[in-house]
Amino acid sequence: MKPVQPLGEEKVFKDPVHNYIHVQDRLIWTLINTPEFQRLRRIRQLGTSYLTFHGAEHSRFSHSLGVYEITRRIISQFERGGYEDWPRDESLVALCAALLHDLGHGPFSHSIEEAFDMDHEEWTCRILLGDTEVNRVLEEAESGLAERVASVIRKDYEKKIVVNLVSSPLDADRMDYLLRDAYFTGVNYGTIDVDRILRMLRPHNGRVVVKESGMHAIEDYLMARYQMYWQVYFHPVTRSSDIVLRQIFRRAKELFDQGFEFKFLPYPLPALFEGNIQVHDYLLLDEALVQTAFMQWTREEDEILADVCHRFMQRRLYKYVETDLIDLETIDSIRNEFARVGLHPEYDLEIDFPTDLPYDVFRPGDPKKEKQILLLDRQNRIQEISEVSDIVRSISGIHRGRYHLYYPQDKLEKVIHQLSEEVAAIFENKINPPQMEFEI
Amino acid sequence: MKPVQPLGEEKVFKDPVHNYIHVQDRLIWTLINTPEFQRLRRIRQLGTSYLTFHGAEHSRFSHSLGVYEITRRIISQFERGGYEDWPRDESLVALCAALLHDLGHGPFSHSIEEAFDMDHEEWTCRILLGDTEVNRVLEEAESGLAERVASVIRKDYEKKIVVNLVSSPLDADRMDYLLRDAYFTGVNYGTIDVDRILRMLRPHNGRVVVKESGMHAIEDYLMARYQMYWQVYFHPVTRSSDIVLRQIFRRAKELFDQGFEFKFLPYPLPALFEGNIQVHDYLLLDEALVQTAFMQWTREEDEILADVCHRFMQRRLYKYVETDLIDLETIDSIRNEFARVGLHPEYDLEIDFPTDLPYDVFRPGDPKKEKQILLLDRQNRIQEISEVSDIVRSISGIHRGRYHLYYPQDKLEKVIHQLSEEVAAIFENKINPPQMEFEI
Amino acid sequence: MKPVQPLGEEKVFKDPVHNYIHVQDRLIWTLINTPEFQRLRRIRQLGTSYLTFHGAEHSRFSHSLGVYEITRRIISQFERGGYEDWPRDESLVALCAALLHDLGHGPFSHSIEEAFDMDHEEWTCRILLGDTEVNRVLEEAESGLAERVASVIRKDYEKKIVVNLVSSPLDADRMDYLLRDAYFTGVNYGTIDVDRILRMLRPHNGRVVVKESGMHAIEDYLMARYQMYWQVYFHPVTRSSDIVLRQIFRRAKELFDQGFEFKFLPYPLPALFEGNIQVHDYLLLDEALVQTAFMQWTREEDEILADVCHRFMQRRLYKYVETDLIDLETIDSIRNEFARVGLHPEYDLEIDFPTDLPYDVFRPGDPKKEKQILLLDRQNRIQEISEVSDIVRSISGIHRGRYHLYYPQDKLEKVIHQLSEEVAAIFENKINPPQMEFEI
Amino acid sequence: MKPVQPLGEEKVFKDPVHNYIHVQDRLIWTLINTPEFQRLRRIRQLGTSYLTFHGAEHSRFSHSLGVYEITRRIISQFERGGYEDWPRDESLVALCAALLHDLGHGPFSHSIEEAFDMDHEEWTCRILLGDTEVNRVLEEAESGLAERVASVIRKDYEKKIVVNLVSSPLDADRMDYLLRDAYFTGVNYGTIDVDRILRMLRPHNGRVVVKESGMHAIEDYLMARYQMYWQVYFHPVTRSSDIVLRQIFRRAKELFDQGFEFKFLPYPLPALFEGNIQVHDYLLLDEALVQTAFMQWTREEDEILADVCHRFMQRRLYKYVETDLIDLETIDSIRNEFARVGLHPEYDLEIDFPTDLPYDVFRPGDPKKEKQILLLDRQNRIQEISEVSDIVRSISGIHRGRYHLYYPQDKLEKVIHQLSEEVAAIFENKINPPQMEFEI
Repeated sequence: MKPVQPLGEEKVFKDPVHNYIHVQDRLIWTLINTPEFQRLRRIRQLGTSYLTFHGAEHSRFSHSLGVYEITRRIISQFERGGYEDWPRDESLVALCAALLHDLGHGPFSHSIEEAFDMDHEEWTCRILLGDTEVNRVLEEAESGLAERVASVIRKDYEKKIVVNLVSSPLDADRMDYLLRDAYFTGVNYGTIDVDRILRMLRPHNGRVVVKESGMHAIEDYLMARYQMYWQVYFHPVTRSSDIVLRQIFRRAKELFDQGFEFKFLPYPLPALFEGNIQVHDYLLLDEALVQTAFMQWTREEDEILADVCHRFMQRRLYKYVETDLIDLETIDSIRNEFARVGLHPEYDLEIDFPTDLPYDVFRPGDPKKEKQILLLDRQNRIQEISEVSDIVRSISGIHRGRYHLYYPQDKLEKVIHQLSEEVAAIFENKINPPQMEFEI
Repeated sequence: MKPVQPLGEEKVFKDPVHNYIHVQDRLIWTLINTPEFQRLRRIRQLGTSYLTFHGAEHSRFSHSLGVYEITRRIISQFERGGYEDWPRDESLVALCAALLHDLGHGPFSHSIEEAFDMDHEEWTCRILLGDTEVNRVLEEAESGLAERVASVIRKDYEKKIVVNLVSSPLDADRMDYLLRDAYFTGVNYGTIDVDRILRMLRPHNGRVVVKESGMHAIEDYLMARYQMYWQVYFHPVTRSSDIVLRQIFRRAKELFDQGFEFKFLPYPLPALFEGNIQVHDYLLLDEALVQTAFMQWTREEDEILADVCHRFMQRRLYKYVETDLIDLETIDSIRNEFARVGLHPEYDLEIDFPTDLPYDVFRPGDPKKEKQILLLDRQNRIQEISEVSDIVRSISGIHRGRYHLYYPQDKLEKVIHQLSEEVAAIFENKINPPQMEFEI
Repeated sequence: MKPVQPLGEEKVFKDPVHNYIHVQDRLIWTLINTPEFQRLRRIRQLGTSYLTFHGAEHSRFSHSLGVYEITRRIISQFERGGYEDWPRDESLVALCAALLHDLGHGPFSHSIEEAFDMDHEEWTCRILLGDTEVNRVLEEAESGLAERVASVIRKDYEKKIVVNLVSSPLDADRMDYLLRDAYFTGVNYGTIDVDRILRMLRPHNGRVVVKESGMHAIEDYLMARYQMYWQVYFHPVTRSSDIVLRQIFRRAKELFDQGFEFKFLPYPLPALFEGNIQVHDYLLLDEALVQTAFMQWTREEDEILADVCHRFMQRRLYKYVETDLIDLETIDSIRNEFARVGLHPEYDLEIDFPTDLPYDVFRPGDPKKEKQILLLDRQNRIQEISEVSDIVRSISGIHRGRYHLYYPQDKLEKVIHQLSEEVAAIFENKINPPQMEFEI
Repeated sequence: MKPVQPLGEEKVFKDPVHNYIHVQDRLIWTLINTPEFQRLRRIRQLGTSYLTFHGAEHSRFSHSLGVYEITRRIISQFERGGYEDWPRDESLVALCAALLHDLGHGPFSHSIEEAFDMDHEEWTCRILLGDTEVNRVLEEAESGLAERVASVIRKDYEKKIVVNLVSSPLDADRMDYLLRDAYFTGVNYGTIDVDRILRMLRPHNGRVVVKESGMHAIEDYLMARYQMYWQVYFHPVTRSSDIVLRQIFRRAKELFDQGFEFKFLPYPLPALFEGNIQVHDYLLLDEALVQTAFMQWTREEDEILADVCHRFMQRRLYKYVETDLIDLETIDSIRNEFARVGLHPEYDLEIDFPTDLPYDVFRPGDPKKEKQILLLDRQNRIQEISEVSDIVRSISGIHRGRYHLYYPQDKLEKVIHQLSEEVAAIFENKINPPQMEFEI
């Protein structure tokens, strides 16, 4: 690889979470200025969470800079410490992978992936390797660099420690999103002592491990994650927004497949619906486009589509009831009754189980090595953290899980007296109706 | 007015700036849930500043809740203190006006207002009084309430203290935006001791005044404002984004007027261009729509439009040079030379003078009483703050002002050798080229 | 009780933790200005922890104001909510008890209590009921008030909810010390969302309970406590300081009992050593006096006393080794060997087991009702938190505990070659020598 | 100088202001552990300010570590930047001087210096050069090092840039105390963007100067200083405490000179009173000793001494009146009247003018070069900041100043009716009686 081309003087971005993001290499600077990276400004980091926590309007652009910055600090400490287990000539590859790892996210990423069966990591690689500015910039820096970065993203890069640095239960991605999501939502549970954690990391035998004396800091980090998951990421009002969003995507695709004549279907949405969208067009997808489509679709003639679009744009979300156990038979009978009284059995009812969620929870004791957090003791021995920490062990044993039934309360109210007593009871016995943004 | 209808239990929104936003009246709750208020989620508080400070992605929705919350705290303190100068039955009107004061903002408000000669306060009133959900909710609470709120916004409400509370150099609007913009940009100059300022406010003879012992807190507030103006609001990179944005609006309107056939011109943009947009359609305007239009317009055939749209969406902004003095003759000769070498004399050059800016700077000694900050001493005498504070007096004397010439550097570079030596010198002697987001 | 005498205007203290401490009653104001309360400025909140965390120099005066403030906020919320289960005419008694609960603390409280078999709660009551300014102020406000406050402190006050408010696993005392100790040490694990917890508290049937929807906030609070205990309160370097301190008290008392002629033994230390100190003299005891005595005692002729005083004043603390298990026999053999090689078998060795500590850890499932945290669900049913929260249950199962042997390393080094191999091995195999203030 | 002896691994102290203090050289570590440096734990950073702001209980020990840390960061940046104007082999001397610069402070430093005509910088040098542990540690590291450090403190070190780094209007001392005093008092006016300032500093031609683009950050720093002076350092309640303290020192010395038999006058106070205290004994002076003496002196037979000691220990301070102008004649007549009615003309009246204060205010335009803040522009030209910044110029023109008369209100009240109408009027027309800790 070409020797690093330093910038004349270090450049900085002002960042509310890390204070400053420091850019020292010309390559990083140039990558930030590519259209593909700038597009991340138009993708929110937390999808629909801003409908629950109004501060959560931050983008994947900010987050990606943060992941880069934390990675830079880790590497800089590895280099200062002179640890032989860190391969110095991999530093720039690792920084590029950290910066670019979210490049493939689409608008309202998790929902659109589900609706159109896409995968953002795959798209990140397609963008890295396709006919893009990012690809040109990487290849100009060094031939083959784009493929090396993609390989880190795909986790099959030969230097395992680079993969581990960029993607592990204690990686810069997770540290930045905990801090950043806590900062922007205002929920202070995500505040972790990132300086202390960074001081405790060591490259060791192809892995990034943690000095044993940092165990409490890791416990605190995992507790912060646990709290953020239940307080923010799995918040039922956010789930409700996701469900309405999913209904929109589902209905629009259904209509498209049926040949419905949309009044508004700008380029490149047809290709998205047809399932053959190409890199260049994928990059035109952003949350501005999707929200504009939703807004215009409130004026389409299909009632279902117009209704769910209205709900999303005006934040008239579905309400929910929580139930312990529910069998397929009961669900069927609810759907049947819904149909009988004129509700739509699919669009007016969604069943959700929190662990179906697209977020990862740390599971100590996972046999997959790359999903473990390892401690390094004074005798240079390695232990998996749950062997040592009772706290970590106990978090791992926790299974939360109650089913939530989501439904449009305004519609249901009008017909509830027509439902069978049994089914009505399920919805009347409602717990915790999310009348507000953040019911605490 | 009907007696206030309290909510069953107070509701709260989690807010990163004020921790919690407390909603106690059903009317406020219902107003927040109107489509007109929810639309503010799609209008950024700081327009294009997110292109300079990537954290500044917060919306007018957040800000409006914050203004409401600060107003609520001020009123609650007035009520607890039992001050006779505060008319208790005006509290709800004041809260509504605080909450709704930004309802009329369009996408990238300041730029669009300039381009299409609109005024957001006027639009706020049109929305309050038009055929809207907000109007219905207010009128249902009490007949005539919408007009009373509009009158506070227009500053001609008969109870002058309500107008003064909602709009003055020390109002909740300014306090919230300083705190919020500081929080989201990460620039800590805007941090003010809002608790202390609130403790010092007193209703007095139709005005909200400040206890004399709070003078230092006010000095600090005005210094924070001064710093935020120069560090954030007037940042030359943000000005550059505004200029590119203005070019887009200008070009699109020019083309529309010439009968250009846009490939993409969704409802209700034609009405906006024609200058006869109605309330219902105005409410469809948001930053998602505008950004989508820009993105689609990168594919239009007009080169100028496509170019400025590309620049905005990919953040390839104009560079600038700073000059002390510039006369009309020099400007003319630059424009002529630009034309001669094939640059566009208007689109490739913009001249900007910071004090032309759409922000208000506090000017102590302003003879307009409603623009003054008044101190109340122990003998109940009133003094205008600049009579007492040297600091305030000295800020007021400061005139900053150098002209900035903005231009597309990539284009200029190609032809600079063809320019006359004199004109070339202006651009070569460039100071402070904004190569970065936040050059510090 | 006499009607509350409000102050002319609310008075405030600037506080780094709560921003402002609000004083609204003249009685509270007068109590703060008594000599007995002012004395708390000279007693550190965290004893010797400042030798580990240099920021931890805050006093019980600050903490007591904080406890008062949190209690004031809880009561104010109970009163605003109009809950019948809170007896409004007990508010001032509760505030006085909150403010004054630490009045009886001596210098380096926990160590001095251990050395001289005293109890700070008992002393608080003696000061409340004795010939003191605090007593006069309370009795002047209302006859019998001092006894009522003392009764709350003793936990035998007839209104159980007042006792529970002032002393429970979720009381204002604990909330303030977590926040304050985190703030002053700089260890951010203690940061809890106190606003949210306060919003969740409800008076219920003679107890202060928590709304079920606040369960995660309570989990977070208990985790913060757990982390603070292991990171701060049980820090081995702090334990080492405590041990050296205890050696000083023990030696000085021994010498006093033997009739040693101290060069420096100011009033009222003789009475303290004799065990018959009276209230008036007890109030002369503070950390200035104790530290001055230690400094002067570095010049006494008894070598042991001079040595431990030097160590404490110059922070040359004992080192430690951690061992899993240790039996009485082994300890005896160490002591014997120490004696044999000229070390002092008692003063040069201390054995410490963390759970012998004077701090309370929350034990869910404690059968004593007043030690439980109770949740209140929507059906007004009560549940003990560990029945509902897995996290809480798992914290409770954690027993940490390794013995620590503390010893003067400088002395030991000189003779370690004379020790038997077996005993030497214990000290050579040392783990984690606290070479620093805060080994992380 | 010997090559730096690095510690095995960097050691850290947890600090609430800077998060971590990083120690990399064995010499620094050893200096921190000397008795002379540990003594600074018993000297408060802000003297009597804790009687106004109860959080201000932090010591010069904490502050000295902070000054060291900021200096370390500046030097580390100079070294990373590879600037030739910084002499690399001076780094350790600079770090030692930064760490040790406050070594000579006595208890309640400013008051004791005034009372006994001492100077803490002189004492710092005596300790550095005397028969002390600090001296031995420095000389062991390199012969002559103690003298070099002392020379930096005395400002006559030959490498002027080292002196300038350690002592200038923008030095690490001032930056740390602003941040630290703001943190511990809770007054947020002192919050400055120290990261940004550090990024802007450059070694240049024997001076530490500021890049021109950092001008606003410097303005903000100077405003923060201005605000902290008026809100905290010059707070009239703190002035009152200082005055009572001075009365104590004055009276005790008077009595000592008169041969008064103190019941309590421990070593080494006699030497202090005699004015011939030596280094070894000076190091025994700390605030514990002084406060203990005050407490014991409340029991002395001299009424004046007992009274002022009581006042200080129980915080029954003098009240004050503010007056615009006062001439010597008036003062004389007040003193005469005081004497006539039985008040003490000296001890019961003190006149204070804020600018007599022992703090330095930045005066731009000071002809002494070492007191200037210099800006470095892109053409490497130097300008003094007030030539460029209007804000800085205007702060400099501000002279505050009203006389304050301090007196014991309780005593005055009893005799005020006996005073002449004229003199009584001065005290009756009292403004802003400091009834509280922090009247805001």
